Amino acid sequence: MYSGLLPSYLDSLVQRALAEDVGSGDITTLAIVESEQRAIGRAIARAALVVCGEPIFSRVFYSIDPGLRVEALLDEGVWAKEGDVLWLVEGSASPILTGERTALNFAQRLSGIATLARRFVSELPDGASTRITDTRKTTPGLRGLERYAVRCGGGHNHREHLGSAVLIKDNHIQLAGGVREALLRAQKNAPHTSRIEVEVESLQALDQALEAGADLVLLDNFEAGNIAEAVTRAAGRARVEVSGGVRLADVSSLARAGVDYISVGALTHSAPAADIALEVENLGS
Amino acid sequence: MYSGLLPSYLDSLVQRALAEDVGSGDITTLAIVESEQRAIGRAIARAALVVCGEPIFSRVFYSIDPGLRVEALLDEGVWAKEGDVLWLVEGSASPILTGERTALNFAQRLSGIATLARRFVSELPDGASTRITDTRKTTPGLRGLERYAVRCGGGHNHREHLGSAVLIKDNHIQLAGGVREALLRAQKNAPHTSRIEVEVESLQALDQALEAGADLVLLDNFEAGNIAEAVTRAAGRARVEVSGGVRLADVSSLARAGVDYISVGALTHSAPAADIALEVENLGS
Amino acid sequence: MYSGLLPSYLDSLVQRALAEDVGSGDITTLAIVESEQRAIGRAIARAALVVCGEPIFSRVFYSIDPGLRVEALLDEGVWAKEGDVLWLVEGSASPILTGERTALNFAQRLSGIATLARRFVSELPDGASTRITDTRKTTPGLRGLERYAVRCGGGHNHREHLGSAVLIKDNHIQLAGGVREALLRAQKNAPHTSRIEVEVESLQALDQALEAGADLVLLDNFEAGNIAEAVTRAAGRARVEVSGGVRLADVSSLARAGVDYISVGALTHSAPAADIALEVENLGS
Amino acid sequence: MYSGLLPSYLDSLVQRALAEDVGSGDITTLAIVESEQRAIGRAIARAALVVCGEPIFSRVFYSIDPGLRVEALLDEGVWAKEGDVLWLVEGSASPILTGERTALNFAQRLSGIATLARRFVSELPDGASTRITDTRKTTPGLRGLERYAVRCGGGHNHREHLGSAVLIKDNHIQLAGGVREALLRAQKNAPHTSRIEVEVESLQALDQALEAGADLVLLDNFEAGNIAEAVTRAAGRARVEVSGGVRLADVSSLARAGVDYISVGALTHSAPAADIALEVENLGS
Amino acid sequence: MYSGLLPSYLDSLVQRALAEDVGSGDITTLAIVESEQRAIGRAIARAALVVCGEPIFSRVFYSIDPGLRVEALLDEGVWAKEGDVLWLVEGSASPILTGERTALNFAQRLSGIATLARRFVSELPDGASTRITDTRKTTPGLRGLERYAVRCGGGHNHREHLGSAVLIKDNHIQLAGGVREALLRAQKNAPHTSRIEVEVESLQALDQALEAGADLVLLDNFEAGNIAEAVTRAAGRARVEVSGGVRLADVSSLARAGVDYISVGALTHSAPAADIALEVENLGS
Amino acid sequence: MYSGLLPSYLDSLVQRALAEDVGSGDITTLAIVESEQRAIGRAIARAALVVCGEPIFSRVFYSIDPGLRVEALLDEGVWAKEGDVLWLVEGSASPILTGERTALNFAQRLSGIATLARRFVSELPDGASTRITDTRKTTPGLRGLERYAVRCGGGHNHREHLGSAVLIKDNHIQLAGGVREALLRAQKNAPHTSRIEVEVESLQALDQALEAGADLVLLDNFEAGNIAEAVTRAAGRARVEVSGGVRLADVSSLARAGVDYISVGALTHSAPAADIALEVENLGS
Repeated sequence: MYSGLLPSYLDSLVQRALAEDVGSGDITTLAIVESEQRAIGRAIARAALVVCGEPIFSRVFYSIDPGLRVEALLDEGVWAKEGDVLWLVEGSASPILTGERTALNFAQRLSGIATLARRFVSELPDGASTRITDTRKTTPGLRGLERYAVRCGGGHNHREHLGSAVLIKDNHIQLAGGVREALLRAQKNAPHTSRIEVEVESLQALDQALEAGADLVLLDNFEAGNIAEAVTRAAGRARVEVSGGVRLADVSSLARAGVDYISVGALTHSAPAADIALEVENLGS
Repeated sequence: MYSGLLPSYLDSLVQRALAEDVGSGDITTLAIVESEQRAIGRAIARAALVVCGEPIFSRVFYSIDPGLRVEALLDEGVWAKEGDVLWLVEGSASPILTGERTALNFAQRLSGIATLARRFVSELPDGASTRITDTRKTTPGLRGLERYAVRCGGGHNHREHLGSAVLIKDNHIQLAGGVREALLRAQKNAPHTSRIEVEVESLQALDQALEAGADLVLLDNFEAGNIAEAVTRAAGRARVEVSGGVRLADVSSLARAGVDYISVGALTHSAPAADIALEVENLGS
Repeated sequence: MYSGLLPSYLDSLVQRALAEDVGSGDITTLAIVESEQRAIGRAIARAALVVCGEPIFSRVFYSIDPGLRVEALLDEGVWAKEGDVLWLVEGSASPILTGERTALNFAQRLSGIATLARRFVSELPDGASTRITDTRKTTPGLRGLERYAVRCGGGHNHREHLGSAVLIKDNHIQLAGGVREALLRAQKNAPHTSRIEVEVESLQALDQALEAGADLVLLDNFEAGNIAEAVTRAAGRARVEVSGGVRLADVSSLARAGVDYISVGALTHSAPAADIALEVENLGS
Repeated sequence: MYSGLLPSYLDSLVQRALAEDVGSGDITTLAIVESEQRAIGRAIARAALVVCGEPIFSRVFYSIDPGLRVEALLDEGVWAKEGDVLWLVEGSASPILTGERTALNFAQRLSGIATLARRFVSELPDGASTRITDTRKTTPGLRGLERYAVRCGGGHNHREHLGSAVLIKDNHIQLAGGVREALLRAQKNAPHTSRIEVEVESLQALDQALEAGADLVLLDNFEAGNIAEAVTRAAGRARVEVSGGVRLADVSSLARAGVDYISVGALTHSAPAADIALEVENLGS
Repeated sequence: MYSGLLPSYLDSLVQRALAEDVGSGDITTLAIVESEQRAIGRAIARAALVVCGEPIFSRVFYSIDPGLRVEALLDEGVWAKEGDVLWLVEGSASPILTGERTALNFAQRLSGIATLARRFVSELPDGASTRITDTRKTTPGLRGLERYAVRCGGGHNHREHLGSAVLIKDNHIQLAGGVREALLRAQKNAPHTSRIEVEVESLQALDQALEAGADLVLLDNFEAGNIAEAVTRAAGRARVEVSGGVRLADVSSLARAGVDYISVGALTHSAPAADIALEVENLGS
Repeated sequence: MYSGLLPSYLDSLVQRALAEDVGSGDITTLAIVESEQRAIGRAIARAALVVCGEPIFSRVFYSIDPGLRVEALLDEGVWAKEGDVLWLVEGSASPILTGERTALNFAQRLSGIATLARRFVSELPDGASTRITDTRKTTPGLRGLERYAVRCGGGHNHREHLGSAVLIKDNHIQLAGGVREALLRAQKNAPHTSRIEVEVESLQALDQALEAGADLVLLDNFEAGNIAEAVTRAAGRARVEVSGGVRLADVSSLARAGVDYISVGALTHSAPAADIALEVENLGS
């Protein structure tokens, strides 16, 4: 799976993370490990998980010692069983020990997100065209990585940031003086490359948005009982996104109601870390 | 509560986060909101939480528009009830809308960590001197902030990074050829300002570590039934830390067993985001 | 006019530019000017131009000496006549001299772009809804500023970057094996917030794109005689953008042909610098 | 031709430019192009131009994918005819598409500058020792690159920045209270490694500068009819530079008048982009 | 000797140093040296010194031209005699000349520190367990490198920074209201991984510190005649560090008095640069 | 005295230094000092020194806490006696303690350089026009600051970096095939704003340099007995600089011999730190 992530982006994340975790040197390893010792580290899933993070896991080790060799045993985006080895790192022992925690911190977070995304995607009925998408509720500084993890999990990305696409929220509507006026201004001023999405909280607001020509409507914390009706009214006029505390158990019925997109903030703001450990074997010197 | 966080550290985090979330401009707000409009935003707890994040929440808004005014209504580290207003931001409407998501992304994460830390701390029996501490399992790039959140929650910090203190893990022991040799090298080479901690996985290893003069022993994934015995053996010779998947329900008995420190990776790697929303009120122009 | 540009973005540009132009100190000014001398500088249009650049012009001077005072005499986006004073800077003489060139380098470029954009916009027939837009052919490192300048000139922005919106070019079509397949993949995989635009070079390709459900078609270096026909075919199905060496003289007829968007790379890659000088008056010490 | 540009300088420019143009991923290419597809891209001159930019053109592609191979078919600084292939890039198709625009944005600007510089240099009479030089009117952030482009075009560089050499302008003279005093202070205080140049706007000011021992005189917007006289007066005492809106048609007579240096701001602030396209050929997978 | 320094740390130092010393190009070398010329440079000790700096010396040259080859002829930490060649650099002549000064500036500083540290260490009586350590009085921006140089010289490192370990100084004691209270707060709040060190200036203060359970006492500018008594009182309770203008001639008697650690600010703040020159031999083209 | 140093340059140095010395928080101060406590710190000369460093000393404290107030009691460049207070810092106690070491590390280095420069300058005979100058042998990363310190001490700056001015060294001569050829290439290719200086090691080489039109000759490790003769030969043709291990005791005779510039690497590479302490007084809370 091609990550699309720029090497320089990964490097900047890795360098910051290493500076933060290594300081001016790993005093335990410097004190104890002889520099000629060699080792192999195996990243092992301690519970089932969707694999994600090889591009940055490997880069952590290469950044400490370009002489290390990292190998992926499982592809990004596949399920690993408990006990599976995801990746190997082999070479000088000291840099492997120094990089272990940073590499795992990245990989556990990304695999955690991919795993949660996959759980949501798996709730979709067979053949459903509904998408599970992320939101802008990502960890500050890690958005690019986390969007990649969502894709590894089978989810889709929402707009990248505030400069990418128009999403008119209740605050915008309030400040513009109404849905119609807000939409009109967006249509007049915003880049033509963006669809124009409007957040609506009632069927009445939905009707206004549709009438004013919204491309997308976002049913935010919408009453569950009204969602099917909303989909019906929007049909052929705008696509429908649902968001707001959607749980795994809600996915199937939302998809059956015909919702096009379900955006889930928890994918990135509350995914528990996947459990991955690095087992290091001494290869002698 | 004095955060001890450097302004330049906060600024670098904020700038990166804003670059990532705003791109070259918030096209929705630019298209819709008139620049003379003014507003007030209220950050509201949508569920009970321990307040944490004011230093960076405010800095997000000041970084977009130095003319905004942010005010804290609740102190860092206190419990907020559902519906409580944590912080206000007032001024020009456009930068408030542009900064909303970034400010909340930080605050929800930090309050999430503080809240989880507080839950662990609250499990300690009255009068116990046991500490709940964080680990190095923090979000890459956010360690300083997350350590602060742990303190807001009533927890303590573990070593900052690999350069701060010695922690001899099984891999070091294996590479050195034994607990005794690893400790000897650490005592000989590492900065004298660090206590020397050794990870042990059995009572036998514990005895070796104590004999070789460890200052601290870390019982990692130790058999629960042996912890009290370990504390007894270490008494007067070394302090005892426990780690490895400790749950809320385990805290009380560990404390009663006399453990000095309980380190909990989940505080930072798996705390769910606290639920905070920004309600924006139009103040006209 | 609200710029929407982040202060930290402006600061990073200014700091880089000053580092590049000042080195470790302005040796002429250090040698000659006494530190207590005060002055006023007036940025004067030496030819008619559309004003653009105050946010960064002022920031250059504030970055050298926070005690300087900058005042705008003309609003962003208005026409200045030859001889008009755009902005004043007043205070200590040394930092004014040191900042002069950097401030002007920014302002001349931005006003140059705004002026050229305005010339294109002015060619549109009264009442035309056609937009003049920029492209991604911006100066590396200055895209945000240059997009702002285009807006100052009355133009609109195209997509911000490759992560913001889908634009399928001939190379994508070739690699996908056809317009239909490329569109299908984009509709299936890309964020739903983006309209999907396809570049077409013939009426035949246009028909394929329309049939496959393109939201936007980009007539790239299209035969002039076919443009009206293309607009007709696309009517009600997709909006039409024209690009490729469009000159001022072409604008009016393209607009009359019903083209929705005219994108002009020259706005940012070849706009001549506007002619602005800083006249400095000695205020004594 | 050895560029003298530091790899780390080029990398910092490339990384900034890619961050700006790619965001967190090229969504069109990610959606459409299969990762195993391979391609070759040919950078083709669509009009005659002086070749410049290989060091950064290649670095853009290497920065996205170190596995790409870039080859230069024409040397820096030579004339390319319309249709000539300047450079090849070969390898995985996706990173070639992602890097295309950024690589061209650099190359078109640099070749544009080199081409304009060459046009000025070509106006010099045979055997003339007069130099065409750049100024500090460069694009903020790109000075090093643009100075290199001027050299590719056959021009010479002026001082790098305010810290490199002394150039006393009218403002300095005014603040010092006269040419003589300004020169005296510069001779007394500035680094001895710099020649001392003084801007003069009349023959009278020229005489003062010569008398006070200027090494170089800069005739700024000087009356054309007086230039030969100025050269005569300066002969054997100071070298003579002319600047201020010099056009191609002026070069020859200035050179014949014996001027030593002609500095042309337009080389860098107003050179139109050279027309270069990347034609991509599908190599299959 | 394994440096433990992160490549990205070294790179950031090298890039900053090169930017500072090369600007936008080495105009002497660009003007004079032909790009096909090759050369070999030999870094030669012009006086006896302890070798230190290979990791950064080599990185300077690799950063300018990855095609250069650097070879170490002497190991880090050994004594070089006058005239010894420490390192070779071979390849294209221009980048060797351009990097010479920056590479030497690093190497002379680091070897200067290592040499001074070795002189202090050599004053210790045979068999003494006393350590010579550095302090936080390092060159701003170069701490990691300078700590490495101290280790090359045979010295030990003190705490890395204020976040690594607790050192209670007179100011802290004064603000806390006494040694006992300051220690109590530190024991209660600071990370348990740090030993707690207290600065004392008299035997009386020493007694208070010992009674309150200090792990380490720092005798700062302590009366020489009292040091042996202090060591006796601390025996078995706390280790003893001495600091404050310690000279070479003081080391032996301090060690004999049983002091555990002697910290010497001069190692890093006042070590004279070691004398190293680069002799360049022309290898032709 | 106007420093000419850019605030953004100072900030970048301060931020790096603080990151390095504070890590993610000053654990001693956080543990011990109450946040409402206030204090005043006095920077005191513990030996006579030339004052230098206020711009960065103050910036360290402002960077930690913008509410602190710093006041200079002595001007930059004046002699302070032992016991003199140079600067005050007043406000919240915690940030004063946290910033103390970083602020002093800068100030001690800069005052050390200024003091050494002043000692050299003071050796010049009355009325001598000879300058004492620095070299490029500065601390990597601190050149701008150290050049400022040299000016504070009464010295002059040499060229800023390799891009500022031409200095032809023996290596360049060797690679060019002789003094004449090297000079010719420099005169032909290098920016006209630079004087052209040539390093010579014998009277014969001097004659060649003079004949070929060098503007400056650098007598490097020249035989002392030949210096007066060199000055005589150069008189009226080129100015004369002497360098290479010049000691304080050599200055007077060099100046009397008529040397124009004496460049002293030791000013920046080997100046011992000035002895400055911060005495902190508790102001209560």
